[in-house]
Amino acid sequence: MQSITGGRAIQGVQFGACRAPVYRGKERDDLLVVAFPEGSWGAAVTTLNRFCAAPVTLLKAHLSETRAVRYWLLNAGNANAGTGAPGFEAAQQTVAALAESVGCRMEAIWPFSTGVIGEPLPVDSICAALPRALAALDGSAAGWERASRAIMTTDTRPKLRHITCEIEGVTVTITGMTKGSGMIHPNMATMFGLLVTDARLSPDCLDKALREAVRHSFNCVTVDGDTSTNDACALVTTAQAEHAEITTLDSPAGRVFQAALDQLCDDLAEELARDGEGAGKFVVVRVREAMNEADAHTIANTIALSPLVKTALAASDPNWGRIVAAIGRAPVSEIAIDRVQVWLNGVQIVANGGRHPDYTEEAGQRAMASVEITIEVAMGQGEASCRVMTCDLTKEYVRINAEYRT
Amino acid sequence: MQSITGGRAIQGVQFGACRAPVYRGKERDDLLVVAFPEGSWGAAVTTLNRFCAAPVTLLKAHLSETRAVRYWLLNAGNANAGTGAPGFEAAQQTVAALAESVGCRMEAIWPFSTGVIGEPLPVDSICAALPRALAALDGSAAGWERASRAIMTTDTRPKLRHITCEIEGVTVTITGMTKGSGMIHPNMATMFGLLVTDARLSPDCLDKALREAVRHSFNCVTVDGDTSTNDACALVTTAQAEHAEITTLDSPAGRVFQAALDQLCDDLAEELARDGEGAGKFVVVRVREAMNEADAHTIANTIALSPLVKTALAASDPNWGRIVAAIGRAPVSEIAIDRVQVWLNGVQIVANGGRHPDYTEEAGQRAMASVEITIEVAMGQGEASCRVMTCDLTKEYVRINAEYRT
Repeated sequence: MQSITGGRAIQGVQFGACRAPVYRGKERDDLLVVAFPEGSWGAAVTTLNRFCAAPVTLLKAHLSETRAVRYWLLNAGNANAGTGAPGFEAAQQTVAALAESVGCRMEAIWPFSTGVIGEPLPVDSICAALPRALAALDGSAAGWERASRAIMTTDTRPKLRHITCEIEGVTVTITGMTKGSGMIHPNMATMFGLLVTDARLSPDCLDKALREAVRHSFNCVTVDGDTSTNDACALVTTAQAEHAEITTLDSPAGRVFQAALDQLCDDLAEELARDGEGAGKFVVVRVREAMNEADAHTIANTIALSPLVKTALAASDPNWGRIVAAIGRAPVSEIAIDRVQVWLNGVQIVANGGRHPDYTEEAGQRAMASVEITIEVAMGQGEASCRVMTCDLTKEYVRINAEYRT
Repeated sequence: MQSITGGRAIQGVQFGACRAPVYRGKERDDLLVVAFPEGSWGAAVTTLNRFCAAPVTLLKAHLSETRAVRYWLLNAGNANAGTGAPGFEAAQQTVAALAESVGCRMEAIWPFSTGVIGEPLPVDSICAALPRALAALDGSAAGWERASRAIMTTDTRPKLRHITCEIEGVTVTITGMTKGSGMIHPNMATMFGLLVTDARLSPDCLDKALREAVRHSFNCVTVDGDTSTNDACALVTTAQAEHAEITTLDSPAGRVFQAALDQLCDDLAEELARDGEGAGKFVVVRVREAMNEADAHTIANTIALSPLVKTALAASDPNWGRIVAAIGRAPVSEIAIDRVQVWLNGVQIVANGGRHPDYTEEAGQRAMASVEITIEVAMGQGEASCRVMTCDLTKEYVRINAEYRT
């Protein structure tokens, strides 16, 4: 079971993208309305940042009322975060305007915003553009594609994939898009993960499946350690596939769906890391033989976030001392230094906490020359493992983030 | 009471610097022997990184035997870290060679190494150079100055200061030097803090005074969040000042000494932050009204380490949303968003968790244009505070660390 680049239409789901404008001086789509057929419901996981954005607060309020959803309302270019009470009102105003246009309850609309933090949302501009977004509604793969571009900020490319699986002889589809390039760190790992399926799962099952998939995918991506104020990952089902409703994931059908969703989220998360701001390399950090999964995740994150490891990666310098130094400072309760082993793209560089006797600088250099790097760490303490995806730290990251608002 | 740039001679303390060589291809001093008079004793605080370097392990072993110290043996260019058992033997060999040359116990020699991690220490080169280092011993201020340069790695300038205070009518001196520019994060904050005094304090008092001074100074500096494997801060006294021995810090003489030591360490720590790798700006993050000091430190560190805050600082962009986003993700148990206030060089940018009504982009821009930035945060939760010193994140940081070993 593999996911495939690009969107795959799902009956009744339509995308309307246009330029509001929200972005100043950029000729691009920055407003997106997604329409779901009657009878759709969904689940969402949102940022743990306490300074969460107004749309996140509103989304959570709507979700606490009902799982039913008819529209998503998204904008890029402005996060509507750090905007206080006026920001919350602004989010409500745009949602109310859409609710009135389409004649549905406000609670059935989920808002998402991404972009600059701390600037007032251009409410008038967004409300005035809603008729154009609605007129543009398109359910084809091309509609998905245009939508995946409308939500980009510093992303260099859209990230859109789909996967299919068979449930009781019925082919079901999950299509997903994601955006995010900087300010990426669990939890949630990404700005937006937007997933739609036609598989029939009970609301509780849908929620559980999403949380499980996110845990190993988006929550295992880190670019710069900065958890965004606006992160949200949502999964909606139109429930139109003609198989019996899945009411437990611990069933053959439940497992098939979970496996497909896991794969799709993994692949989308990988695309996020590959498109990390200024990224020159895609880096996987695998930690195994840890005491428990939390420790494995902490150690992997400490390596993945170390500016010294990340700059060495950018320079293709096999400065493995920085990797062991990062392991050494990982905030876990216990580390047995003399059992630690480290491999760089299969070349063992550290054995029992010191340089491996057969390691040569030349072998390290060859391994580091690749644009795809796997750092594998065995802790020799237990059986838990974790994989984190990240990228290197380049001058380009600094340039992008220094010039972000100019 | 102020500290002053430059060294001040302390009777009986001598510095012998020379080129071993340890650095390949760099014509500079990289070996340093410091001699203390008979009757000196000291205290040291070392890195909490579990992958601590061989010299740190050996230093701790010596300290557990005796507080008496006659020599420091330092090298730059090689950290002797991540070198396993052979690395520990290498450290012992160089110390044994010096012990034999000068005729003292090994335990009275404290080793320090800084530089590249994971490469074998050039023992032969260091041992062969010891006679030259000993021949160069010099107790003048010029000797201090040359020593402060011999321990530099990526530092752009030596960091050497002294302070004097009066104890029972006797003028006592504390002279200190520090080095470190990257891989800087508590605990310990710096690679080396090397402090010498002639004040008479009992060994226990000396140890307590050092720990207290370090807590608020070197442990409150962060450049990149990477705790070094080799951090050490040591304080030795020759005990030659002619006042009664200080046996408790809770005495007039104890308080005077502590205040002087605090001031010197604060000023040296500030020099570290000002010379952070690639630094264009010196940044102070002050968090007050926190629930407790640990929370205040955590919140300040989260702001000071955020790559997004640091790149905005580099660009003089008053992107204050990144500051509130960093506060929002700080790993503390409780944050009351709607009480948070933030000032940037005195300009209030955030009130009650949102943009301050009177804030203008122009005022923010003017504040950010300075090369000295103070970010002040009031949490509205309690009475604890903490100050952390850091610098911005520039392309130069990436260049320095990408090219470090080339």
